[in-house]
Amino acid sequence: MIMEHLPKLQTKNIVLASQSPRRREILTLMGLPFTPVPSQFEENLDKSSFKSPRDYVMANAHGKAADVAASQTDYDLVIGSDTVVVLDGKVLEKPKSEGEAFRMLAQLSGRQHTVATGVSLIAKGDTTRTFAEETSVWFAHLSDDVIGAYIKTGEPMDKAGAYGIQGRGGALVRRIEGCYFTVMGLPMHALAREIAELCKEHLL
Amino acid sequence: MIMEHLPKLQTKNIVLASQSPRRREILTLMGLPFTPVPSQFEENLDKSSFKSPRDYVMANAHGKAADVAASQTDYDLVIGSDTVVVLDGKVLEKPKSEGEAFRMLAQLSGRQHTVATGVSLIAKGDTTRTFAEETSVWFAHLSDDVIGAYIKTGEPMDKAGAYGIQGRGGALVRRIEGCYFTVMGLPMHALAREIAELCKEHLL
Repeated sequence: MIMEHLPKLQTKNIVLASQSPRRREILTLMGLPFTPVPSQFEENLDKSSFKSPRDYVMANAHGKAADVAASQTDYDLVIGSDTVVVLDGKVLEKPKSEGEAFRMLAQLSGRQHTVATGVSLIAKGDTTRTFAEETSVWFAHLSDDVIGAYIKTGEPMDKAGAYGIQGRGGALVRRIEGCYFTVMGLPMHALAREIAELCKEHLL
Repeated sequence: MIMEHLPKLQTKNIVLASQSPRRREILTLMGLPFTPVPSQFEENLDKSSFKSPRDYVMANAHGKAADVAASQTDYDLVIGSDTVVVLDGKVLEKPKSEGEAFRMLAQLSGRQHTVATGVSLIAKGDTTRTFAEETSVWFAHLSDDVIGAYIKTGEPMDKAGAYGIQGRGGALVRRIEGCYFTVMGLPMHALAREIAELCKEHLL
């Protein structure tokens, strides 16, 4: 586990290849020091060329981490990540308009969907570990009024699947199965486990 | 759902009968205005006199809410809450010493347990709604070193079962089944649903 490596990790230069306030919060909760550096990686991979949403988010996560690693002269670890919502095998990303947010939330209403988050770790010396986690989420039934009121809060617009579990959107979620932090954007337990492995193998 | 009642709820005097920073955060995430007022209710009910942990946390939640409601001259809603960890049918509350925290965490290591949170709502005019939610939590295997390092962070001491899921302790949790916020101390979806019901019935 990561807990016993935290003192050593305080001296490391860890770069988060993301501007997401939720991912920042997760690293802060874990007690990891980090610098956020936004990636210039263009997220325009062809979804149909991937076997599964897991493969797709891992490819995006790796693209983001590799882009930032290439731009940094001095780092111990770069963390890239990508999150999508999957409903009936179809990938929902960030809505491009309020109309699209409305349609996404209407589709999610009263049903179960999956959130997939890919993570890619690039350690100094180019050791790379890429993995993905999935969590099932059950939404409450949402009337058009509820969806309209939620969109008015402004919360859905920058989030995969048009909702944030850590915010007003939390009240829409009846239950989850899996890691909560996977839904927020960075699977805390799996990330802690992989970073601890890198420490144990003296790669970090 | 609560979303469409939020504008009206901004004008209400909502009292949270708890000093827990985690419960405050949940109400803030929900967008509810509130005043925290600590309850003087003594949590010394005889556990063995309750049929189940659900009944026990509901009794504590109601005791806290009723105590605070009695001390307030003007409120629209008082929210009381109580959370326990249940392992093999045995209730774990806040550890009284670091030794007890160590024993609790060693018991939870590598296993599944249940977190039960009771909530009691007292609206003006004494309408009372009391309910409980349970979430299953799977812990990673924890070595003695990990437990020792976690206790050193100081996080376990004021928490039922000696861990906080929203903090360093989040890395110890492999998966959950149920509402994440039940583990944090206040089941957001169920609370939102019950408050919306009170609004619809013009009791709030």
